[in-house]
Amino acid sequence: MHSHHWPHQSFTAPFTTTGRSALVRPPPWHYAGWLLNVAFRFDALAAMPLVPDAVGRPVGTGCVHFADWQACTDGHELLDPVLSQYRETIVVLEVERPDGSRCMYCPAIWVDQDISMVRGLLQGWPKKMGSTWLTRSLPLDHPAAVPLRRGSKLGASLAVKDRRLFEAHAEFTGQPGRPLGFLTQATIGAVGWADLRQPEQFPELALVKPDIVARTGGCWHEVSACLRMASHPGEDIGLLGDLVVEDASAGWLGLTVAGARDA
Amino acid sequence: MHSHHWPHQSFTAPFTTTGRSALVRPPPWHYAGWLLNVAFRFDALAAMPLVPDAVGRPVGTGCVHFADWQACTDGHELLDPVLSQYRETIVVLEVERPDGSRCMYCPAIWVDQDISMVRGLLQGWPKKMGSTWLTRSLPLDHPAAVPLRRGSKLGASLAVKDRRLFEAHAEFTGQPGRPLGFLTQATIGAVGWADLRQPEQFPELALVKPDIVARTGGCWHEVSACLRMASHPGEDIGLLGDLVVEDASAGWLGLTVAGARDA
Amino acid sequence: MHSHHWPHQSFTAPFTTTGRSALVRPPPWHYAGWLLNVAFRFDALAAMPLVPDAVGRPVGTGCVHFADWQACTDGHELLDPVLSQYRETIVVLEVERPDGSRCMYCPAIWVDQDISMVRGLLQGWPKKMGSTWLTRSLPLDHPAAVPLRRGSKLGASLAVKDRRLFEAHAEFTGQPGRPLGFLTQATIGAVGWADLRQPEQFPELALVKPDIVARTGGCWHEVSACLRMASHPGEDIGLLGDLVVEDASAGWLGLTVAGARDA
Amino acid sequence: MHSHHWPHQSFTAPFTTTGRSALVRPPPWHYAGWLLNVAFRFDALAAMPLVPDAVGRPVGTGCVHFADWQACTDGHELLDPVLSQYRETIVVLEVERPDGSRCMYCPAIWVDQDISMVRGLLQGWPKKMGSTWLTRSLPLDHPAAVPLRRGSKLGASLAVKDRRLFEAHAEFTGQPGRPLGFLTQATIGAVGWADLRQPEQFPELALVKPDIVARTGGCWHEVSACLRMASHPGEDIGLLGDLVVEDASAGWLGLTVAGARDA
Repeated sequence: MHSHHWPHQSFTAPFTTTGRSALVRPPPWHYAGWLLNVAFRFDALAAMPLVPDAVGRPVGTGCVHFADWQACTDGHELLDPVLSQYRETIVVLEVERPDGSRCMYCPAIWVDQDISMVRGLLQGWPKKMGSTWLTRSLPLDHPAAVPLRRGSKLGASLAVKDRRLFEAHAEFTGQPGRPLGFLTQATIGAVGWADLRQPEQFPELALVKPDIVARTGGCWHEVSACLRMASHPGEDIGLLGDLVVEDASAGWLGLTVAGARDA
Repeated sequence: MHSHHWPHQSFTAPFTTTGRSALVRPPPWHYAGWLLNVAFRFDALAAMPLVPDAVGRPVGTGCVHFADWQACTDGHELLDPVLSQYRETIVVLEVERPDGSRCMYCPAIWVDQDISMVRGLLQGWPKKMGSTWLTRSLPLDHPAAVPLRRGSKLGASLAVKDRRLFEAHAEFTGQPGRPLGFLTQATIGAVGWADLRQPEQFPELALVKPDIVARTGGCWHEVSACLRMASHPGEDIGLLGDLVVEDASAGWLGLTVAGARDA
Repeated sequence: MHSHHWPHQSFTAPFTTTGRSALVRPPPWHYAGWLLNVAFRFDALAAMPLVPDAVGRPVGTGCVHFADWQACTDGHELLDPVLSQYRETIVVLEVERPDGSRCMYCPAIWVDQDISMVRGLLQGWPKKMGSTWLTRSLPLDHPAAVPLRRGSKLGASLAVKDRRLFEAHAEFTGQPGRPLGFLTQATIGAVGWADLRQPEQFPELALVKPDIVARTGGCWHEVSACLRMASHPGEDIGLLGDLVVEDASAGWLGLTVAGARDA
Repeated sequence: MHSHHWPHQSFTAPFTTTGRSALVRPPPWHYAGWLLNVAFRFDALAAMPLVPDAVGRPVGTGCVHFADWQACTDGHELLDPVLSQYRETIVVLEVERPDGSRCMYCPAIWVDQDISMVRGLLQGWPKKMGSTWLTRSLPLDHPAAVPLRRGSKLGASLAVKDRRLFEAHAEFTGQPGRPLGFLTQATIGAVGWADLRQPEQFPELALVKPDIVARTGGCWHEVSACLRMASHPGEDIGLLGDLVVEDASAGWLGLTVAGARDA
């Protein structure tokens, strides 16, 4: 291998001296969005194939998050929102680390913009493309606005390669809600890059934890929810089997990621 | 022509006895959304080709609205948001009617969902497909959230057939804003359907005005804005020439359309 | 209603004096494409809700066509292929007309471009948006090329609003194939336009038959096929029940529509 | 960093013991497609920022390829074509290596499917998402079919983030054509992965060359072409300045990549 020391200025490809074309800029990455969180339990053993040993053992609880995000670095993306807006569906599972501590791990996530997809891979969130829809709550008293009050209903869905994989229906209870899923504990990512020069080898994984330097919102609203997961020929997440909803909430969240460290 | 009296139950195609497949259900149609409104003036004569005589004469003022909507009939669409959410870019021009009164007329509009496209054609809003992006304001104090306060910046864009046609940049002034464009006056639509049995004829137009039976929101926030319109080989809107921004605002709006009447 | 006689030059909306923005130009409409045709039988009674009485009675045979089209008027669309290319899934059913003759009728069709969608509605083909994928045969001897020979395999799928509705798998037998579905008989369309001024009424339907003035290709290749139709909350086509494949073919087709007449 | 030795079976994320969810499977990767190749010259110095020193120095010639691909591994993707079909626009530049030899280098490429995007990054082709359209030649004598003969016209376009970046118009001359661009010489890729644990560092690059183990087609058809590149705020490719078309061709190509080696 020919190691290379030319001063390109790209955090990700393409690698140019201006860095302007790079799909992803270096952090800090600022995120703000509207989320529906549906926590569930399932057969812990069923999730073993989804969680690397070094991460730990699944304990039988998890969460699916449907998210409608706005993200930026220096803010220029907010002036050209095709660069800042995306939707994604995130599955996280709670695991017991080898040292006995607890954390979350993301075995599956789907997003609809390339910038977010690569940003996710760098964090060890295994993003693929998928189509997420999520009803929003608007600050209006109108039949289409889903105001934040008891009885307002919302829905969410994910389709991957033209097959619907998740659907959720939810209804505001009028009660305060809880943070769930990746909002409750640090989430460990597994980063690995295949090497085409050794195509018969699977990549080694580095476990990392994000540096979250700012977090706002977190005023969660309780919803009652039902969740449906369909089988999908290209997805392992169905191995979880029946998902029993335990809690659900919706609300706005802002957070900023500055980098990552070994986990 | 073989006129047909079989009792299908479809407001629009396909025509079946259940009506379940119909792309559009009968009104009432409920809409709630977030809008960026940019009012402009231009050379009134330049707009003559865009406004039918029977509608009236353009007076040289207009507005482009970038909108991020949620719409429903009986509410089932809010549980499956691929059915309820869409984004669109609306151009309206102020016209003097033959009787001397004033109204708005929509010469061009682009949307990203079929349901909304056909609903628009039925109202005489000449919808075609286009890709609209619009920064949202979230109720958070965070760099990606664009909170509703002086200095927060947002952007919007429209692309039609992979060519960018409109771009806007805006910044909240911290002052109250005004309703603009179709929010200020009734908007007349021109409905017409080509008949393939007479392909050499252009359709006759019926002028209609919507019955708006509920309207909420309208707490507009002033923004300073700049607007750019690019030339496009498939669009006449470029005939307007230079657009001089006169006023701009952003905010949430809810309204319900119950039908239409002759205009 | 204010009837309108101003000389706009638009076959469809928007209605301007240049006609340049009109989504659809007048015919002739030229189409050339690659098709997978899967003919099936089903319980004829089950299709009654899908076929207007004036069209006739379903006889229990039909066809689904997966098509990858290129279409144009004067040819300018071929220089800017976002204007000419689209994919669609077409269902046609054979019916016995009230006069005892046979024809085809299209109760459901999904396309991925607005131009084709409105062109379809004008012909009485009830187009809605959907995502069609169809493997192509390329003139190469290569594992990814699916050459036209015994054993080459191909697939097709349709998703509507992020739910997969049809899937087909097929394999070339090496034998000549037959034209099927709309390739065998004239197809009657049902044209109707809702009137928002009378929103409680369903539209009257006009039955039309296309004027096809040129047709090429038709060198069909036999395939063995399996077809799967999933249930879909927004689609009536599931009323057909079990679809039993009777014949299938693939190949290229060119045709030109010059207009329509009463049927 | 916690190095990890658990036996997952995923070539790329997500990392599971089944490997079923992995976005990309290990090679061999089979590709077959229809391509429009437009070779150009430009000011060699202008391309310096786009080509890493270790790759070499641009010599002032390059090519843009518009491609409509079908790709597979074991062939299952051809039965579910959402997994196999994609379109992309490829720019390659000819470079003189430090040792005086010549090769091609890809400074920019845009694709419309995630599988291809990650496969590209692994090969050092810096793929981002973009919307490519490319007229096809069908084996029919029809106005919409663009048959392979003198005078038939075709077009291509690329849009990135809703802005059109490339457009080409071409016309078959009736003469045989030449292979161009990456079809003429080996293309070197620059592979690099940012590490979020060191976000202030830009990645080191590994230079690789693909192992191409099968190649078919290559019966190129000459076209006369014009090419237009627009400026784009997020793309460096505009640094090339004026592109002067030198040669152009279209045709089908099949090739298989088995892996890569150091370059």
